Amino acid sequence: MKPIQVGLLGIGTVGSGTFHVLQRNQQEIRRRAGRGIEVTMVADLDVERARSIVGDGVRVVGDAREVIANPDIDIVVELIGGYGVAKTLVLEAIAAGKHVVTANKALLAVHGSEIFAAAHAKGVTVAFEAAVAGGIPIIKALREGLTANRIEWIAGIINGTTNFILSEMREKGLDFSVVLKEAQRLGYAEADPTFDIEGVDAAHKATLMSALAFGIPVQFDKAHIEGITKLQALDIRYAEQLGYRIKLLGITKRREEGIELRVHPTLIPAKRLIANVEGAMNAVVVQGDAVGTTLYYGKGAGSEPTASAVIADLVDITRLATADPDHRVPSLAFQPDALADTPILPISQVQTSFYLRLQVADEAGVLAEITGILADNGISIDAVLQRESAEGEKQTDLIILTHETQEGRLRAAEAKMQALPTVLAPIVSLRKEELA
Amino acid sequence: MKPIQVGLLGIGTVGSGTFHVLQRNQQEIRRRAGRGIEVTMVADLDVERARSIVGDGVRVVGDAREVIANPDIDIVVELIGGYGVAKTLVLEAIAAGKHVVTANKALLAVHGSEIFAAAHAKGVTVAFEAAVAGGIPIIKALREGLTANRIEWIAGIINGTTNFILSEMREKGLDFSVVLKEAQRLGYAEADPTFDIEGVDAAHKATLMSALAFGIPVQFDKAHIEGITKLQALDIRYAEQLGYRIKLLGITKRREEGIELRVHPTLIPAKRLIANVEGAMNAVVVQGDAVGTTLYYGKGAGSEPTASAVIADLVDITRLATADPDHRVPSLAFQPDALADTPILPISQVQTSFYLRLQVADEAGVLAEITGILADNGISIDAVLQRESAEGEKQTDLIILTHETQEGRLRAAEAKMQALPTVLAPIVSLRKEELA
Repeated sequence: MKPIQVGLLGIGTVGSGTFHVLQRNQQEIRRRAGRGIEVTMVADLDVERARSIVGDGVRVVGDAREVIANPDIDIVVELIGGYGVAKTLVLEAIAAGKHVVTANKALLAVHGSEIFAAAHAKGVTVAFEAAVAGGIPIIKALREGLTANRIEWIAGIINGTTNFILSEMREKGLDFSVVLKEAQRLGYAEADPTFDIEGVDAAHKATLMSALAFGIPVQFDKAHIEGITKLQALDIRYAEQLGYRIKLLGITKRREEGIELRVHPTLIPAKRLIANVEGAMNAVVVQGDAVGTTLYYGKGAGSEPTASAVIADLVDITRLATADPDHRVPSLAFQPDALADTPILPISQVQTSFYLRLQVADEAGVLAEITGILADNGISIDAVLQRESAEGEKQTDLIILTHETQEGRLRAAEAKMQALPTVLAPIVSLRKEELA
Repeated sequence: MKPIQVGLLGIGTVGSGTFHVLQRNQQEIRRRAGRGIEVTMVADLDVERARSIVGDGVRVVGDAREVIANPDIDIVVELIGGYGVAKTLVLEAIAAGKHVVTANKALLAVHGSEIFAAAHAKGVTVAFEAAVAGGIPIIKALREGLTANRIEWIAGIINGTTNFILSEMREKGLDFSVVLKEAQRLGYAEADPTFDIEGVDAAHKATLMSALAFGIPVQFDKAHIEGITKLQALDIRYAEQLGYRIKLLGITKRREEGIELRVHPTLIPAKRLIANVEGAMNAVVVQGDAVGTTLYYGKGAGSEPTASAVIADLVDITRLATADPDHRVPSLAFQPDALADTPILPISQVQTSFYLRLQVADEAGVLAEITGILADNGISIDAVLQRESAEGEKQTDLIILTHETQEGRLRAAEAKMQALPTVLAPIVSLRKEELA
């Protein structure tokens, strides 16, 4: 059978990784797929650079539409990124009857419903293993490996940049801004790191996982997103004293009232395997009712790890290339006509426990006042740590770990505590998850 | 479309888990598979007990052949175990044109080539996610998720019983025999634990993973197998002092000369994620040339975790049930006509590093003699730990960590060291892997 012909739209880091791995491992891949898989056409604005990567055997064009219009191309791989031209091109490729593989989490998290509907109507596949956690086959695990389960929750370290920063902050006791500069110098953070450090990238990925896990449409606009820019080294140290690590987690959880979808710095017990995932590595924990806890770990970014995921999708499509569309595995794990309209809950209705740090006046009755407010709001306390104030010091840090509560209640209590004259600075509150 | 009809052969722990999870999550599973999946027939020697599990809606028979002969049954799930009647029934089911799902690692590791060939000839699928690492979708990761990669090696904690025992030995400083009794009392070890503690079960699973990773036939008879029965608490303590944990690993590795396939207690750096997998949990590390290191963690046994894997296979088959056989994902990841005859290397040709414990006379020149023998055999030393001998004591423990060497050389050196009059007891040697 003649090889499957692949057209790449964009040949940057991931594109060149995809090209090189497909070449280097072509024999192994053919032995698995039953058919060769070849990049025969590449579109990139920088035609010269593209040609220097792929050599003479591959047709290089400046206009992506030439790839889409080429009847010999079976699969279009979109590696342009962003919501703009990438969206137009993906929809055009689908309309032209091409299967699409993409690493574009932003595009799918925001415009996924439109794109998946178009693909379903046309009978083609949109595959996106590379969009979440790089080379870790977590999309496949959710879509196929855990189909027996009612998924209860997912919690993942799904942004390498922020995990690198948090690891360095903890190990070296440095502040966020210092470590960010170091991360940029080392290439772990981009020149404009906003999407990473503000949690947007993680929220794109969490949105995709929530759809795969719960059979709901992708709803990025409903995600609650907090990054790590305000995190202080002090809180990392207090957390450690209490047996916790702070990680930026993407969390999605099924509750009776709806689905939680949130990204924020989170205290997790230091003894959990995922708490020990350091540096730029990624890991995702999935809790299913039958399987219990499973964890998936690996490199979440980089040229060849991401290419590994792109090519896995290419092999999947190749294995099924000539099957009729009814036999394809549904893009979002659930059949398109079986999606549910379970609501995503607002953050005020989220159930979690909290870490609170209050800078309080070191005088009698303060603890009683504060714990009284928590009790009045029905929030019970799991642990208290009060730093011994230095001689002559008139203030101290009071750390409180709460049991699980509704976020709305905690915020009401927080406002009342903040208003106390004995609370001397803005209260720091961080969410805490046991992941048990 | 009418539901896919499943017949269970054997309804013990995994069978009843499969039945219950399919019932409990039938809606979710139908939303994913696009079709209902129902157990409509069960064969078990204990018909009464079987009926008490499945109730009146399911046909229960004593003779498995009635299930196989039933034209309404689409998929036969073999949960009998062992090489005997299970083999006959699986081959008969294939001959009858049924897809087969099995958790039987022993059967596939020993008779897999015959079974997969029969299935291929008949155009049916034999799926076995449940055969390795219980609910962890590791077969799927190897067969589909990592298809871009030239797999370099796999190392897995793939037997929960032995990992529980090793965890307890380390945490409590107890000897093997004491912990084994405790494990039996708690249900973590069977009354006859031979297959677990001697490493046979792990070797079955490692054999299957070696075939999936390297595209070779299953060759259980070539696996080198050592269990944990001779492991001493003392060596676990010394390993810990040197920064290592001892785990029973199933290892398969690609080398230029051939493939390593071995199960044995192994020192691994305590800082590796897999070194921190405790109790009855399983974890598998896979090293691919593109993706780098990935790790998969979860419950390796138990009723519902194993059922999770059985049902994932049922959903896979259901999604492709009416596709023609050419579109099926190959059972062993590689196309049946693309298997390689790369040899499995004998243990003497394995490359690894070693932990050696020698009980030596506490006199001048002993260390020089021993290190001289290692040097003569071309084995270089990574670290030495010599316990300070107590006052009046005439002997001491000498611990040596070697760099990587060929096992044959190490054994030659070991024989020479053992023959020294200053070496007072049998030398303890354990393999060590950095997993980097």
